Amino acid sequence: MPTLVLLRHGQSQWNLENRFTGWWDVDLTEQGEGEARAAGRLLKEKGFDFDRCFTSLQTRAIRTLDLVLAEMGRSWLPVTKAWELNERHYGGLTGLNKAETVAKVGEEQVKIWRRSFDIPPPPLDADSQYDVASDRRYAGLPVPTTESLKDTIARVLPYFENHIAPALTAGERVIVAAHGNSLRALEKYLSNIADRDIVGLEIPTGQPIVYELGDDFAVKDRYYLSER
Amino acid sequence: MPTLVLLRHGQSQWNLENRFTGWWDVDLTEQGEGEARAAGRLLKEKGFDFDRCFTSLQTRAIRTLDLVLAEMGRSWLPVTKAWELNERHYGGLTGLNKAETVAKVGEEQVKIWRRSFDIPPPPLDADSQYDVASDRRYAGLPVPTTESLKDTIARVLPYFENHIAPALTAGERVIVAAHGNSLRALEKYLSNIADRDIVGLEIPTGQPIVYELGDDFAVKDRYYLSER
Repeated sequence: MPTLVLLRHGQSQWNLENRFTGWWDVDLTEQGEGEARAAGRLLKEKGFDFDRCFTSLQTRAIRTLDLVLAEMGRSWLPVTKAWELNERHYGGLTGLNKAETVAKVGEEQVKIWRRSFDIPPPPLDADSQYDVASDRRYAGLPVPTTESLKDTIARVLPYFENHIAPALTAGERVIVAAHGNSLRALEKYLSNIADRDIVGLEIPTGQPIVYELGDDFAVKDRYYLSER
Repeated sequence: MPTLVLLRHGQSQWNLENRFTGWWDVDLTEQGEGEARAAGRLLKEKGFDFDRCFTSLQTRAIRTLDLVLAEMGRSWLPVTKAWELNERHYGGLTGLNKAETVAKVGEEQVKIWRRSFDIPPPPLDADSQYDVASDRRYAGLPVPTTESLKDTIARVLPYFENHIAPALTAGERVIVAAHGNSLRALEKYLSNIADRDIVGLEIPTGQPIVYELGDDFAVKDRYYLSER
């Protein structure tokens, strides 16, 4: 089974501002661009190569992948962009920073949302400036108004099973450039992480995570490429 | 029928050095990046939008498209990369500048190649540093060793008919980011330009060319967007 590399996008403007981003389409910061290029250089230097790439419909992940491929001299690889790999939709928290969130709903409630696997935040108001329901890229798609991590996993895993797993099974080396929670979904599935533990798994920006897989996607090794 | 936009990549390093590039994978210059971004801003400003994008397997065209889409806030659009949209393969001329070519084969011969529709340059030596036959991106594909413009057209047009035309017929607005000669092939077909005339059609870098099409791809209007 070929190697699978997971990559969370580089720092975005709202990572920097510590705001819940979700489906809002925020671009990379200069630091984030640098993280993406460094990831590409590291992958090349360590002899990694790919046959197929997957990313979300969100600019920060797409541009991270573009920068990685440019550094690797692999801009010509096929790239599939899928809404199913988007970040978790943070509902009514979208656009708020942590302080604003505590002020709005109280510290106890924030803890519940941050620690829970299956409790979604309240839905995003339809008149919110951060509502993406009318964004053309999502036309005809089942755009959520909020998601728990469990909800996110429920759309990421079928996509993995129907599109990414068959590519791997066919012998293709795959990179997935996506988001903290869509990658948590994949890590939970591949590494068989319990519901209560997956919420605490922090995935750093711009750090390639390597999965060496055996038959039936059994994990032979999983590591941060920067640590080898 | 929706609008079709053709875009030649921005200035590449070998455009700048006046060397025959063909299938050699040269990147954009800074000026070329600027041309691509300006094309994206112009398209956005003029109210253009797209549903589907096509480009070649060559970095200068792919990066031009990426920069255009980034400026338009459309990085999420589906992009299909196809070798059939590559530049004409310049055979043994690849890598030479005009002065070197004249010195190598004489001025008369250069005129013949530059003005002829169906006479290819001699094939590229298999031991040339510019041979791409072993490049992984072309594995399993019928990589030419040289092409006349006629040869280039013979691979571009079937691709247009099988992939781009059906998208247009289905109502999708299309942008094709490609190369001087692969775009000449499309212009010859759409505008019904004679063999002896197409060789003289100069396609400027980074200038969106708009085709307004009617039934059966009849051309209602064709113009450089910068001139409207």
